[in-house]
Amino acid sequence: MADEKLPTRKEDFSEWYNQLVLRAQLADYAPVRGCMIVRPYGWALWENIQGALDRRFKATGHQNVAFPLLIPKSFIEKEKHHVEGFSPELAVVTIGGGEELAEPLILRPTSETIIGHMWSKWIQSYRDLPVLMNQWNSVVRWELRTKLFLRTLEFYWQEGHTAHATREEAAEETRQMLEVYTDFAVNEAAIPVIPGAKSEAEKFAGADITYSIEAMMGDGKALQAGTSHFLGQNFAQAFDVKYLDQNGALQHCWTTSWGLSTRFIGAIIMVHGDDQGLVLPPRLAPIQAVIVPIYKNDEEKSSVLKAAKELKAQLAKAEIRVHLDEREGFSPGWKFNDWEMRGVPVRVELGPKDVAKQAAMLARRDRPGKEGKVSASLADLPTAIGKLLEEIHQSLHDRALAFRRANTQAAASYDEFKQAVENGFAFAPWCGSGECEAKIKEETRATMRCIPLDQAAVLGREIASGGACVYCGKAAKDRAVFGRAY
Amino acid sequence: MADEKLPTRKEDFSEWYNQLVLRAQLADYAPVRGCMIVRPYGWALWENIQGALDRRFKATGHQNVAFPLLIPKSFIEKEKHHVEGFSPELAVVTIGGGEELAEPLILRPTSETIIGHMWSKWIQSYRDLPVLMNQWNSVVRWELRTKLFLRTLEFYWQEGHTAHATREEAAEETRQMLEVYTDFAVNEAAIPVIPGAKSEAEKFAGADITYSIEAMMGDGKALQAGTSHFLGQNFAQAFDVKYLDQNGALQHCWTTSWGLSTRFIGAIIMVHGDDQGLVLPPRLAPIQAVIVPIYKNDEEKSSVLKAAKELKAQLAKAEIRVHLDEREGFSPGWKFNDWEMRGVPVRVELGPKDVAKQAAMLARRDRPGKEGKVSASLADLPTAIGKLLEEIHQSLHDRALAFRRANTQAAASYDEFKQAVENGFAFAPWCGSGECEAKIKEETRATMRCIPLDQAAVLGREIASGGACVYCGKAAKDRAVFGRAY
Repeated sequence: MADEKLPTRKEDFSEWYNQLVLRAQLADYAPVRGCMIVRPYGWALWENIQGALDRRFKATGHQNVAFPLLIPKSFIEKEKHHVEGFSPELAVVTIGGGEELAEPLILRPTSETIIGHMWSKWIQSYRDLPVLMNQWNSVVRWELRTKLFLRTLEFYWQEGHTAHATREEAAEETRQMLEVYTDFAVNEAAIPVIPGAKSEAEKFAGADITYSIEAMMGDGKALQAGTSHFLGQNFAQAFDVKYLDQNGALQHCWTTSWGLSTRFIGAIIMVHGDDQGLVLPPRLAPIQAVIVPIYKNDEEKSSVLKAAKELKAQLAKAEIRVHLDEREGFSPGWKFNDWEMRGVPVRVELGPKDVAKQAAMLARRDRPGKEGKVSASLADLPTAIGKLLEEIHQSLHDRALAFRRANTQAAASYDEFKQAVENGFAFAPWCGSGECEAKIKEETRATMRCIPLDQAAVLGREIASGGACVYCGKAAKDRAVFGRAY
Repeated sequence: MADEKLPTRKEDFSEWYNQLVLRAQLADYAPVRGCMIVRPYGWALWENIQGALDRRFKATGHQNVAFPLLIPKSFIEKEKHHVEGFSPELAVVTIGGGEELAEPLILRPTSETIIGHMWSKWIQSYRDLPVLMNQWNSVVRWELRTKLFLRTLEFYWQEGHTAHATREEAAEETRQMLEVYTDFAVNEAAIPVIPGAKSEAEKFAGADITYSIEAMMGDGKALQAGTSHFLGQNFAQAFDVKYLDQNGALQHCWTTSWGLSTRFIGAIIMVHGDDQGLVLPPRLAPIQAVIVPIYKNDEEKSSVLKAAKELKAQLAKAEIRVHLDEREGFSPGWKFNDWEMRGVPVRVELGPKDVAKQAAMLARRDRPGKEGKVSASLADLPTAIGKLLEEIHQSLHDRALAFRRANTQAAASYDEFKQAVENGFAFAPWCGSGECEAKIKEETRATMRCIPLDQAAVLGREIASGGACVYCGKAAKDRAVFGRAY
């Protein structure tokens, strides 16, 4: 795996990404166009993402459920914007058990419709509300241009769905889940994100408001890393989801949905990765510390491996996810490169001299060369590595935030705007019209990513609000972030 | 939920089961025929099953992965027994993104074929072996007669897939995973099972040997609760999965697969449930202890709820999965029935008198009435409940084992056999021929469940091996378990 060099990010960011995903054995192409296989290392990363999110969902009162994959085709047609958005992307089952089906079934592209259908049966009274559900599954959308993790025909995600008695409560839930995603991105994945509202053109098909968290990748492009939708009463009306309120009147529910997918793995790769390969954020890394034993002969091997195994047990006891690389027939240098490619945050080098002085050399993945190396005594290693992992987390986050701010320009004119989106984001006054948005997209390939909820956080300083729309010159209320996007 | 009485198991076991699944809110019928929705309480149970199995899989060196849902139709045709077994049950996608597909895609009924295809790319040398993989997903089989959890068009499961250099190692893996399932059934679900080998007629389509764990339900019928398949080189040959051995020769791999599904929830319901409802095994129960506060006026309510909340925190700290039922407008008696229906192992009754003496009344779900009640001081409650949960686990297991043995007859003649399978299992000498097996099935509706690996464990005593086949009278080697089955 580590034998050939990756292209550098400057040379070809897209090819760097593709090769890295394959060589680090995160995923592979499936035999069906546009589908992917998530390999053990990639799935272990996803399991850690799942764990970190699931804890947050349960702490905010949500329960997991499982709605089926197969949805009657007629369901998708009940909400008018939903059908427009999803019809072109559907996969359709027409044969079951050797016979043509009376009604074709679609593979869920998302589950609002079937959940709405069931809620209309389950929800009777205000006592049944709120309903707070989430499910971990895969969905199918017939995409034409695909890329591992970023856009695949089938992808893995969670989809949260909630129903409420009032508009206010549903709106609050929508914002709460946006905060959960923000907290997860920052505190687990070390990815600084911009939470904000999408435009009418970019919102979810069937939503009144869509919020997203937007991140900047290593090439300056944007990636929408999670979304939270306020669905108003659109699906409740389409599926007749009603409750009897405290005064005995029948009311439609207010609903939300929110999702985060295996795309997020693409964000981790493209935010933190460098020319040597992956750089995984410590709190999500499947392996946090890898021990590479170093020896020249059988005698050295025996004492080094003995110490390495003891160390592994000691680190595992301290709840550090540790791996001991005992592979035969590979040099330590080859192994160093291999684990760098795979992005393990801390490498522990252990040779006969280290064992003699009861110490080991620690190398940080995020700081190449001597600068990232430090020696520590074996007895202190669990504490030292624990501290180092925290430092790496913070350092990755700060670096990504500094990069994003350095590549985001507060553009006052359309010329400044066009220059900004060549390599990053433009943070610019926008009148809010779909026409300006469409023209901008056509002329610059940059899309409106979001109107940030916290305008000062984008650049880390207050920016005058208002001003003239960079495109049409009319009055603008807030600034919006624009960028080319994945 | 608890207002209407369930039919008793004697009156109508099947209807008792159907109503129980709905009323306990484990699952519901989906709008597509034969599909199910697993509701929060059912999914929480499945999550606990997943956790208990996943720990065991990882401890035996397996890694989780995700292979796609969509498989080219041609793949299924490459292994001749596999295609015969699965062709009638396939769901086929013929349209994607609005266009007819050049090659139809099937929804995976199981993943041996696509995994074989990828292994042929990934596996090169003996150094790459063994490959030990597992995935948690759903699969689709177009079943005609369906029943919630027991047989649905889409069901949830895990499928393990491993590849090995030698026949011996693959055979050992197959038996190891059978042991993992047995250990899980006994020690987590309190379900005694009979591990054994299936007949040629009942084995997996494409396997050389299929092992299963078989359990007896409350109506005396059998349920296959998990299977482990030795696939020989069948799939390795069909998909060209080869490795270079230590002598530089190209060899086909030896493979296995093994699975356990949401059917297992059906087994839990039908093994432990009683006429009042579910009885959940404590180690898997989503809620292990429910606190029902008892009060008559606001003053009592305030002091009881205060004590109940403290108690809840104390139990949660002791890692007992606890729920406090604060619902307004329902009497304590109604709540007792409701939680009995839902099978919570321990009920904690807390009224003003209990609070005054700093005690609470504990009621065991598995022992109705006064016999199952005991008072304990609040300070001792975490310990007392912890002990009680262990006792309940053991008691459920022992009761189910005694029931199975009481309803299993060592049949020496066909008459005895026919009587035995009316209400339970026949443990009978069988010559091993498929003809006798088919005749027996036709005449008695009983199928060969397995040849138990441990013959003495079936009835808890040594039974003479050999003897004459109950059907044809020819010499029989081992005894086999026969029964009518789900």
